[in-house]
Amino acid sequence: MAITKFISERNLRFLLYEVFDLESLTDYPHYREYNRKMFDMVLDATVKLSKDLMWPILEEMDQNPPQLVDGRVKVHPSVRNIMQECGEGGWIAAGFNEEFDGQQLPILFVSVCRFIFMAANYSAGIYPELTAGAARLITSFGSKELIETYVPNMLNGNWQGTMAMTEPQAGSYLADITSTAYPTGDGYYRIKGQKIFISAGDHDGVDNVVHLMLAKIEGAPAGVKGISLFVVPKLIPSAEGQLVPNDVIVTQVYHKLGYRGCPITELSIGDKDDCIGFLLGEPHKGLSYMFQMMNEARIGVGLGATAIASAAYYAALDYAKQRSQGRNLSQKDPTLAAVAIIEHADVKRMLLFQRSVVEGALALLLQSAKYADLEKVSTGGKKEKYALLLDILTPVVKSYPSEMGILSVSQGLQCLGGYGYCQDFPLEQYYRDARIHPIHEGTTGIQGMDLLGRKVMMQDGRAYKLFLEEIQRTIEKASGIDQLTSYTRKLEKACELLQSVTTHMKSLASSAGPEVFLADATVYLEFFSIIAVAWQWLKQMVAIQKGLEKKHSRSETQFYNGKFHTFRFFFSYELAKIYGLAPRLMDSDRVTTEMQPELFND
Amino acid sequence: MAITKFISERNLRFLLYEVFDLESLTDYPHYREYNRKMFDMVLDATVKLSKDLMWPILEEMDQNPPQLVDGRVKVHPSVRNIMQECGEGGWIAAGFNEEFDGQQLPILFVSVCRFIFMAANYSAGIYPELTAGAARLITSFGSKELIETYVPNMLNGNWQGTMAMTEPQAGSYLADITSTAYPTGDGYYRIKGQKIFISAGDHDGVDNVVHLMLAKIEGAPAGVKGISLFVVPKLIPSAEGQLVPNDVIVTQVYHKLGYRGCPITELSIGDKDDCIGFLLGEPHKGLSYMFQMMNEARIGVGLGATAIASAAYYAALDYAKQRSQGRNLSQKDPTLAAVAIIEHADVKRMLLFQRSVVEGALALLLQSAKYADLEKVSTGGKKEKYALLLDILTPVVKSYPSEMGILSVSQGLQCLGGYGYCQDFPLEQYYRDARIHPIHEGTTGIQGMDLLGRKVMMQDGRAYKLFLEEIQRTIEKASGIDQLTSYTRKLEKACELLQSVTTHMKSLASSAGPEVFLADATVYLEFFSIIAVAWQWLKQMVAIQKGLEKKHSRSETQFYNGKFHTFRFFFSYELAKIYGLAPRLMDSDRVTTEMQPELFND
Repeated sequence: MAITKFISERNLRFLLYEVFDLESLTDYPHYREYNRKMFDMVLDATVKLSKDLMWPILEEMDQNPPQLVDGRVKVHPSVRNIMQECGEGGWIAAGFNEEFDGQQLPILFVSVCRFIFMAANYSAGIYPELTAGAARLITSFGSKELIETYVPNMLNGNWQGTMAMTEPQAGSYLADITSTAYPTGDGYYRIKGQKIFISAGDHDGVDNVVHLMLAKIEGAPAGVKGISLFVVPKLIPSAEGQLVPNDVIVTQVYHKLGYRGCPITELSIGDKDDCIGFLLGEPHKGLSYMFQMMNEARIGVGLGATAIASAAYYAALDYAKQRSQGRNLSQKDPTLAAVAIIEHADVKRMLLFQRSVVEGALALLLQSAKYADLEKVSTGGKKEKYALLLDILTPVVKSYPSEMGILSVSQGLQCLGGYGYCQDFPLEQYYRDARIHPIHEGTTGIQGMDLLGRKVMMQDGRAYKLFLEEIQRTIEKASGIDQLTSYTRKLEKACELLQSVTTHMKSLASSAGPEVFLADATVYLEFFSIIAVAWQWLKQMVAIQKGLEKKHSRSETQFYNGKFHTFRFFFSYELAKIYGLAPRLMDSDRVTTEMQPELFND
Repeated sequence: MAITKFISERNLRFLLYEVFDLESLTDYPHYREYNRKMFDMVLDATVKLSKDLMWPILEEMDQNPPQLVDGRVKVHPSVRNIMQECGEGGWIAAGFNEEFDGQQLPILFVSVCRFIFMAANYSAGIYPELTAGAARLITSFGSKELIETYVPNMLNGNWQGTMAMTEPQAGSYLADITSTAYPTGDGYYRIKGQKIFISAGDHDGVDNVVHLMLAKIEGAPAGVKGISLFVVPKLIPSAEGQLVPNDVIVTQVYHKLGYRGCPITELSIGDKDDCIGFLLGEPHKGLSYMFQMMNEARIGVGLGATAIASAAYYAALDYAKQRSQGRNLSQKDPTLAAVAIIEHADVKRMLLFQRSVVEGALALLLQSAKYADLEKVSTGGKKEKYALLLDILTPVVKSYPSEMGILSVSQGLQCLGGYGYCQDFPLEQYYRDARIHPIHEGTTGIQGMDLLGRKVMMQDGRAYKLFLEEIQRTIEKASGIDQLTSYTRKLEKACELLQSVTTHMKSLASSAGPEVFLADATVYLEFFSIIAVAWQWLKQMVAIQKGLEKKHSRSETQFYNGKFHTFRFFFSYELAKIYGLAPRLMDSDRVTTEMQPELFND
């Protein structure tokens, strides 16, 4: 594969240093060990690792998907190497505190590293990603013993971590899980049940797999209030330091559309009544623990979706620059030489669409990551404020990149015409890989209900108000810049519409009941997300204007000008779409709630 | 595969008889041999053939893609059977006049048959589809000898037909093709060149392959005015009735994202300077001949895209009815039994979206087919009128189903959650198959330029005016129906906006030049298409109201009510989207034309 670019390092540095002021975080004691030079070094090392280890096997991993052989899942031989390097190099532990031998790097920075890995090779990036997420659950809620037994081996890449939530009969409705934990009185439980769609649920690239598994303790209350969280290792470390097989077996590796470098497994737990699990934290609080981790996992999905879209964009851009075809429309002379297709306005439109989605989504993701940092280092009212801002943005940063990532990759594929449909170029793989994101870690429909039903409503709309205030702050900063006046006005108008629509939706909650109130939650999510991303583009523009004012090299000026055009594109083409969504959200036609299932018969 | 429904026969009959009044065509002498009973019989036979022969091998064909073995392309063994049945049963010849031993069935009706085959198995349906298209080129422009030599064997399914247009260096810009035809003075030409992306360019399911190939006669004018059309058989029928190998070889079978049951091939022509081709019609008129066939081929792509979306919709619907998960939002009691997911408003929204796209797109396709019929049977001004209406709708019926079909299938996949992403259900295949449509037979970008740059402008906007008059006629019919008043008003408002936007776009042509004028042609195409489909929904509603007024069985009332809700959905959710597109089309920010290629460097 001749293409060698899958991210823009310049843009990552722009976001980290010029937009989100990463260095300001080092003023807080928690991050005081770091400085710009160290960030740059780690960033370089991350890019190098991703290019050396992950990128070259992107297609190989896709073409040789995991196999279930004699009860074990065989994956690409490089997975072991990747886990080792990510463990030894400190990437799995990057966001962990020093007490766990972590690097204690800012979440903002760690998010960029995760993005780079997943852009190089989404499947490859998932192994360390999941391990970090599972280990964090243990450090957050586990006993000292659980932490000491499991966390070091996970953070050093020897053991894989998983999130084992979904069950066949329950799907998205975790309240209905039936996996059961039976107390033994010996400090552990015996677990019985079945889990489906468990990413990296087993593989031969590690020495052990540690499942963070939801189950109900026998006799627990019905619904979500009866769910507990357990550590269920594939092999149980004995007091003598040996690894003893536990009663967890892989019954299936799913054959799937994409994301083929990583196994998604079906697990059967306690078939021989001998599966041992260790309760994490207190009984019946499993779901609330999981939810505290959800922000990280959902940002992870958003990062992964944006990462694939980034790689697809650079593949399309590379093709568009090299492929000659046709002439400018004003030149009718057929004897003239053909021009590169990047000269055609419609191709530029497709490229700008991709770039505006990728860089807009990434900015919003890093905004969330910065809120997570600020929450971590703050106390009192400030801590609460940042927690609320992170909360309200989480469904947005999970679903906007997921949904728009699909469209972005599709436009990338379209730039290549027939070649985009063929396996000679990576676009068709990106197209398959990207489709997972609106599904896992809570479907888009669930994110919509989370945003409108919970996040916008909670604490009498406090998170929502804080969100609007944050936009207002950016608008104020931009107001001083002449070149931005018309765009600032556009965003103000969008916020006014957001207010009207939100007021209307909230009124439905009381006047028409929950079904009608949430029937269009997914549409509201899309509407809300476009405005949030427009905000991030205006925020970038403030930094771009600063950049443009300085004297620069030609390439720097090009960079800032390119960003400026991409910003213009988003405001003209994408922000306008809210005016196609608002009429539906304000419409009193309740067609979806009134549609009776039998009317689908034809 | 447990799913057994891929089309709605009831809806097909509704469109044929209640909306487009197929029977009225039998008043014309050309179609006088037919009546309702005969149509129904052929329809039943078509459904039976598609269910018996094509549907059962949908997944098999995908999982065992064509292989190039010793210079021959091996395809699924059933392809021979399919071609034979479609030949002997008269389906390839369905739309051909009696003089060619055709069935002389109305294009409206034949379009429905094509739709059924492609819904059952898109790849399988393409073999007869392409053969009919190629044969029609020969009957339209070929000499008696060419017709007698090639057409009977194509229409009876013994020989495959292809369209060999694309070349590696030219892509979408046919003006730049370099395949060359050298006159021999013996009634044929020697051809030399290379063709890429040729569907069904060779396979072992037929005894011969007949390429309809574009090439330039040595010394021809540059550009499109130098293109001629040739019949280039794989095996040349000798005077003695033998088949003698021609110098056309398959150099590659592409490995592609989907549409895997049919080979797309790379052809090398005249490597040994011994490829014989026969000129079709006059020299240098090849492209105009091809364009006369384009309407049929592009309607074919629209039918195929809608067909896949139809199959995906019924697979999603089947799942949504059977899959229990969660409870109604007003019921918080976790001990209640889970409900079928079709009860959830968001799932109904996803299903209604699919149904509104599938049935709306299909109506517009059949509207075009009816115009083609009326053009065929009319004379003088009427003939011209229907030709213009068909012309202006062609880019719309090619691209709306292609683009929206992708989104529709994607929503179908989403209904299945994680299962949609796995090979256990056909959704992931449909998702891959559907992605070809915005690419082949002219990309969406090209359709946009065709609509705005040619069709809207031609004859001082005559086709465009006729199109608006057709909508007006429907509005007038609907105006008499009380229940439709608010919807009729919505369509009127949409037409007013179409007028404003079109006037604005046309003014750009003169004030700002062709680059700016056509820079947003793709966006205009989307905008225009939504209004065209809304028109078709209102047209269906007039028929639905008639249906609802009659006394019916419960299932019939359900059918009409289901259509009514789907109509409401389209008007509330989909038609509103024009208000998110118009602001961009009216925006004076020329960001795509101003974006210089080097500004993409970062």
